[in-house]
Amino acid sequence: MSKNLTTRSEDYSKWYNELVVKADLAENSGVRGCMVIKPYGYAIWEKMQAELDRMFKETGHQNAYFPLFVPKSMFEAEEKNAEGFAKECAVVTHYRLKNDPEKPGKLIVDPNAKLEEELIVRPTSEAIIWSTYKGWVQSYRDLPLLINQWANVVRWEMRTRLFLRTAEFLWQEGHTAHATRKEAIEESEKMMNVYADFAQNFMAIPVVKGLKTETERFAGAEETYCIEALMQDGKALQAGTSHFLGQNFAEAFDVKFANAEGKQEYVWGTSWGVSTRLMGALVMTHSDDQGLVLPPNLAPIQVVVVPIYKTDEQLAQIAEEVNKLIADLRKLRISVKFDDRTTHKPGFKFAEWELKGVPVRIAVGPKDLENGTYEVARRDTLTKEVKSKEGIAAFISDLLDQIQADLFKKALDYRETHITEVNSFEEFKDVLENKGGFVSAHWDGTAETEEKIKELTKATIRCIPLNGVEESGACVFTGNPSGKRVFFAKAY
Amino acid sequence: MSKNLTTRSEDYSKWYNELVVKADLAENSGVRGCMVIKPYGYAIWEKMQAELDRMFKETGHQNAYFPLFVPKSMFEAEEKNAEGFAKECAVVTHYRLKNDPEKPGKLIVDPNAKLEEELIVRPTSEAIIWSTYKGWVQSYRDLPLLINQWANVVRWEMRTRLFLRTAEFLWQEGHTAHATRKEAIEESEKMMNVYADFAQNFMAIPVVKGLKTETERFAGAEETYCIEALMQDGKALQAGTSHFLGQNFAEAFDVKFANAEGKQEYVWGTSWGVSTRLMGALVMTHSDDQGLVLPPNLAPIQVVVVPIYKTDEQLAQIAEEVNKLIADLRKLRISVKFDDRTTHKPGFKFAEWELKGVPVRIAVGPKDLENGTYEVARRDTLTKEVKSKEGIAAFISDLLDQIQADLFKKALDYRETHITEVNSFEEFKDVLENKGGFVSAHWDGTAETEEKIKELTKATIRCIPLNGVEESGACVFTGNPSGKRVFFAKAY
Repeated sequence: MSKNLTTRSEDYSKWYNELVVKADLAENSGVRGCMVIKPYGYAIWEKMQAELDRMFKETGHQNAYFPLFVPKSMFEAEEKNAEGFAKECAVVTHYRLKNDPEKPGKLIVDPNAKLEEELIVRPTSEAIIWSTYKGWVQSYRDLPLLINQWANVVRWEMRTRLFLRTAEFLWQEGHTAHATRKEAIEESEKMMNVYADFAQNFMAIPVVKGLKTETERFAGAEETYCIEALMQDGKALQAGTSHFLGQNFAEAFDVKFANAEGKQEYVWGTSWGVSTRLMGALVMTHSDDQGLVLPPNLAPIQVVVVPIYKTDEQLAQIAEEVNKLIADLRKLRISVKFDDRTTHKPGFKFAEWELKGVPVRIAVGPKDLENGTYEVARRDTLTKEVKSKEGIAAFISDLLDQIQADLFKKALDYRETHITEVNSFEEFKDVLENKGGFVSAHWDGTAETEEKIKELTKATIRCIPLNGVEESGACVFTGNPSGKRVFFAKAY
Repeated sequence: MSKNLTTRSEDYSKWYNELVVKADLAENSGVRGCMVIKPYGYAIWEKMQAELDRMFKETGHQNAYFPLFVPKSMFEAEEKNAEGFAKECAVVTHYRLKNDPEKPGKLIVDPNAKLEEELIVRPTSEAIIWSTYKGWVQSYRDLPLLINQWANVVRWEMRTRLFLRTAEFLWQEGHTAHATRKEAIEESEKMMNVYADFAQNFMAIPVVKGLKTETERFAGAEETYCIEALMQDGKALQAGTSHFLGQNFAEAFDVKFANAEGKQEYVWGTSWGVSTRLMGALVMTHSDDQGLVLPPNLAPIQVVVVPIYKTDEQLAQIAEEVNKLIADLRKLRISVKFDDRTTHKPGFKFAEWELKGVPVRIAVGPKDLENGTYEVARRDTLTKEVKSKEGIAAFISDLLDQIQADLFKKALDYRETHITEVNSFEEFKDVLENKGGFVSAHWDGTAETEEKIKELTKATIRCIPLNGVEESGACVFTGNPSGKRVFFAKAY
């Protein structure tokens, strides 16, 4: 197969768009801004879901499901949240179509089926969930509520890109309720850490943990924790957020509990989410000009075996040998595909599996049968070596671990060399334009300065890193005093 | 805890509604006709999903995800399908809210954000999926496409009931495309059989496999296969459907392929689905006046252990013993909960776990510790016995299998005694009114007769059973000739 991918250096953005489509991850649909997630892309998302779901359950959370629609009056109850999402809401106004009297075979909205109250397609579910929690919480004994939902949400974005920004996307949203401020803050931090562990251990993506500024905070939150990743083009990508909601939603929906002394108090809340946007981060962190590079921990197919043969008899001999190998690999819980299609040549298959990012390719031909060997190729390094079939399964298993670790290390090295401390605005602009990455700079803490820097450079404050050190300095823009550096970057 | 459940004989419908809420399965939300699926209910649905998903994958299907919205022009392309769902469509007409100039803090739909074309919230996804398949299929080598989607759908039903009929529900929908009519029919039949196996082996619900009449067929299908279950009140419930779509959607969306001879042909299609409605079937098939009865294969908690103690020291001793038991049960992949809450008495706990349908309850007190015994209670039969702790884990494992088998047998016995052959319309009405269940009767094959019988008795033809024998008879209503009996029933 011919890949014909635009290279990253030619046009990073175009490379990404082409790769997502050509690798069969997703494509645009006939519905503006909405994507179709294709089976290969969805299989990666399923692996992400399975790991995250396990991690949520291990930290005491249960899944539930809440309605897709939010009545307008419920939606507007928490004012900041409503204001934050009002500009991008899909609104259901009618509940029936009827035949178009003027055009046979066509339908029109039935004007007699107008809803008394409009329904908002959830852009996020705090409103519907907190209106439900009101009925679930009476006493401190009912707390904490530790609930997660896997769902689709809709935000009517004007400029969309596959996975990164789509009108509809899939996500999980955790919504928890607690008796104390302290416990809710601990929960927010815990889930940020769960996301960071997932990003690093499964996606092989290093992340910076931090707090959002007030400007970038979730609408309705008191504090937003986030994990920020760095893509290969030097732009940042927000990979997950965890919000400490204070008592905002409890007050808006009147969710109170009787504490141990019998006194009524408002409940403390958190919410946290990651979405199919992670698919975009995965692609942009590791992939190269040959196609996808998938970390073994999330690859739907970890090993592909391609037979090299001329005759049916050779294929049969190879298949016999390969079936033993496959059985051994499966015992080690390695997912393996034997690509014995007779319709395509090995070269085509090599290119296809490279494009699709399968971490390890094994080729085997008549000569290998004679010599008792396999040719083992790594997708990440595009290197190959001939290995004896003795102990090959264990070798492959170790190799997959090695690839996982190497991908993380490579991404971490890139990230580490792309955090640049600057002390003047000239330096700031220079680094941003010519190097990219996170620019670590002092900031005076005002939204005005943040906004001006954004206007001038398109860089936003990605986060106030949690591991940042206290140091006195001068704001890179105004020169006003600052006690800590923050991370600026251009971002997706 | 006090259950205060209405009994089935008092009011079956009220019993069901109360049970679903009191057992923490689901509740009505603040959105008309939409339910909240609570964690305990969702945990059962997750077990259903896991098994079905495994079965779909074992039969060669892959998951994918398609948009929530369907543009109106796309929706109306397959006319019969559009006509069938037009009357219950939620329609998105706008994409933004704005501040209400007259009421501060309130929002109104922004009239300047009207969509050029209305979007239908999917009631089912044939339209969006077949419009996508057009791009995926060129040659016979691209076929078959064997795809499934887990999703939410919306049908604006006027009368709703938790799980059984809700405006939004969760389901899976398989959509496959084939090169030949024969292969598509085989696929429809295969998936009906997968559903039947799932219903019988996991839900412990016997089902009748059959074909729908033209009147009851899916809008846009050439043939609808179904599985029909019988509830304890003698009413039938359609538990799953599998449609042979012929070339209807391929023609509507111009999905053609080049066959092996290079000739263009329309693709053949199927679609098949089961939904959260199965939760309703599960509740209504097995549960009793004490609460839920869950088949072990779908119970989120299979065994609950309740300690009986007076002192903290006794509780500690019991816990030590129970922890060994739990470890042994978990090794056998049995999910077990130790209810060591100190806030509730054993009697309360017994009632709560009965209400929630946990298949096996183990109670253990100081006397049991002395004697080396456990008290083991079955939820389905409400019987209990004292067992030696020697070999208890294996005993429990066998007991769970026994309960699963007994529940199926009980439901099958009920179903078998509630299929009644009738040969006159008097008999028909008598059985329907006084006994319920499936009424096996000759029918002249016309929609008119079907409709008249429905008007007079509220009974519909649930299916034309696939295992029915050819026999010549006279239609129970018109006396016209008939070659086969069909199953009538009142239905959910």
